[in-house]
Amino acid sequence: MQWYVVAGLLTILTSSQGILTTLSQSNGGYKYDYATIPFLAEVLKLIVSALLLSREIKTSTPPRMTTDWNSVRLYPIPSIIYLIHNNVQFATLTYVDTSTYQILGNLKIVTTGILFRLFLKRKLSNLQWLAIVLLAVGTTTSQVKGCGGASCDSVFSSPIQGYMLGILSACLSALAGVYTEFLMKKNNDSLYWQNVQLYTFGSIFNMGHLLFDDLRGGFEKGPWWERLFNGYSIITWMVVLNLGSTGLLVSWLMKYADNIVKVYSTSMAMLLTMVLSVFLFSFKPTLQLFLGIIVCITSLHMYFAPANMLVDLPLTAKVGPQTVIDVSVDRKSDS
Amino acid sequence: MQWYVVAGLLTILTSSQGILTTLSQSNGGYKYDYATIPFLAEVLKLIVSALLLSREIKTSTPPRMTTDWNSVRLYPIPSIIYLIHNNVQFATLTYVDTSTYQILGNLKIVTTGILFRLFLKRKLSNLQWLAIVLLAVGTTTSQVKGCGGASCDSVFSSPIQGYMLGILSACLSALAGVYTEFLMKKNNDSLYWQNVQLYTFGSIFNMGHLLFDDLRGGFEKGPWWERLFNGYSIITWMVVLNLGSTGLLVSWLMKYADNIVKVYSTSMAMLLTMVLSVFLFSFKPTLQLFLGIIVCITSLHMYFAPANMLVDLPLTAKVGPQTVIDVSVDRKSDS
Repeated sequence: MQWYVVAGLLTILTSSQGILTTLSQSNGGYKYDYATIPFLAEVLKLIVSALLLSREIKTSTPPRMTTDWNSVRLYPIPSIIYLIHNNVQFATLTYVDTSTYQILGNLKIVTTGILFRLFLKRKLSNLQWLAIVLLAVGTTTSQVKGCGGASCDSVFSSPIQGYMLGILSACLSALAGVYTEFLMKKNNDSLYWQNVQLYTFGSIFNMGHLLFDDLRGGFEKGPWWERLFNGYSIITWMVVLNLGSTGLLVSWLMKYADNIVKVYSTSMAMLLTMVLSVFLFSFKPTLQLFLGIIVCITSLHMYFAPANMLVDLPLTAKVGPQTVIDVSVDRKSDS
Repeated sequence: MQWYVVAGLLTILTSSQGILTTLSQSNGGYKYDYATIPFLAEVLKLIVSALLLSREIKTSTPPRMTTDWNSVRLYPIPSIIYLIHNNVQFATLTYVDTSTYQILGNLKIVTTGILFRLFLKRKLSNLQWLAIVLLAVGTTTSQVKGCGGASCDSVFSSPIQGYMLGILSACLSALAGVYTEFLMKKNNDSLYWQNVQLYTFGSIFNMGHLLFDDLRGGFEKGPWWERLFNGYSIITWMVVLNLGSTGLLVSWLMKYADNIVKVYSTSMAMLLTMVLSVFLFSFKPTLQLFLGIIVCITSLHMYFAPANMLVDLPLTAKVGPQTVIDVSVDRKSDS
């Protein structure tokens, strides 16, 4: 499968996630416990991966599986980073409002680029760096509050701790992504075996989260396993199925593509959700949404288009690759 | 002189123009007749150019001057285009409000690129086209009304005639620029001789404008020449001097650089004015101004940076120019 097909699918499913979650609400709230969604999605991903792995084992060329503890012990790390991230996110929201938090969240795009370069030692061209900055600017532009918005000018008026925690949150989120990519690519193990390890720990950590919520609430509503499916509708199950599917697609991208592809997919999904919301939920389209979309599409083109397509002038196309470099020299000597 | 020094100077002076014009107001209005400013600036440019031309004539290598009527008759054309443009602008403002007009004005950047390609047959790379679109998006972003702004969501709610006239206005403005560049570059005539022709017609057309205003007002306030300097302060003279200087710099750029350089200068000047206004007039800085500046600086870099600086990967830098093309192929085979 081509990486851009998977990335396109991820964009559509991530976008549906937002729409389905909104549709699953009744009277502006959830009838079910929202914390059960990621838990069930982890279990779903684990079951699917285990089934695919068992099928793979039965084939004539059994999959590569490293079962050494030195390898297995690395797989809970993404879950641990996400756990820390969730707590930092919670702390950030005590200093900044949700719309400022959303704006700060776009820093994740830039921190992913930086950690991608530093930890995975992946080289990016200047143009690709510019594209990454533009993607972050484009998504932020689309989220700028229109005039008449409820909370005004709050983006520059939060306490400094809020911004520091927001940056830390963006770094942790990027770190989890980059670490997962490192795990998936560090050897030629079967993707399904790697998934089984990731999602086993993921399920355990999510279970821990549900249990912790119960403990904090003094088991007032009963233990989580007794009310797991309470208030579930068909749409709630679709949310679980959708979240599980996006997770599997992300795993695939981490192994066969990279974090930047994932970041583009999820950013485009955010814009797609906003466009769909205009039609589905009669959201008012803003000029800034339109501008943000142009910036993000330009960024996409800059990052992924072949270099010769971007900089080769039609005039010099026939002469050869050397002329690519002469282009701007020509411009300067012009005046 | 290097084109980028002139472009930088133009940015600073264009930006000062906005600041000085604001400072020249008293109680939110002008004590002088604003239509006298462009007239005096044209006369100033004519005097300066005539002086420089006469000095050039006295040198051992006299300047090239085409005095054939077939050439001279082309020089009023920019003035005529500006005259039509001013009337279209006036008509546009009967359909759209000033903030929508300002937003639509950014289309001029894109129309300049298109006419530059069509009429002057100048080739631009894909990346340069993307840069031009980004420049227009960046300047527009910086102008998006913050929340709490007076007129809300008016950008999408004007009658269709308003948008059509706005586009026509952007085309006429671009046409005047492109035509001037054609005039300045069509032969090796002295820049000062070309200026003398341009500004002679410019002065006449501006004088016509003042006379027309008087006729329309039934000479109520007396003829324009009797009240030419009424209400002038030292700052008003600085506005005239500044406008004259920017005009001379634009002429220079039209001959030795091009329209795109001019468009970048004036766009950057607009952003600089907004940043300076934050300090001078305590304007509230908005997130969209910040985002717009990043997009415009990225665009500037994309348009003017040498191609090999943008797309050459550090990894493959030593191998040679052919590898520039391999960059994205490598990325695709990765997954």
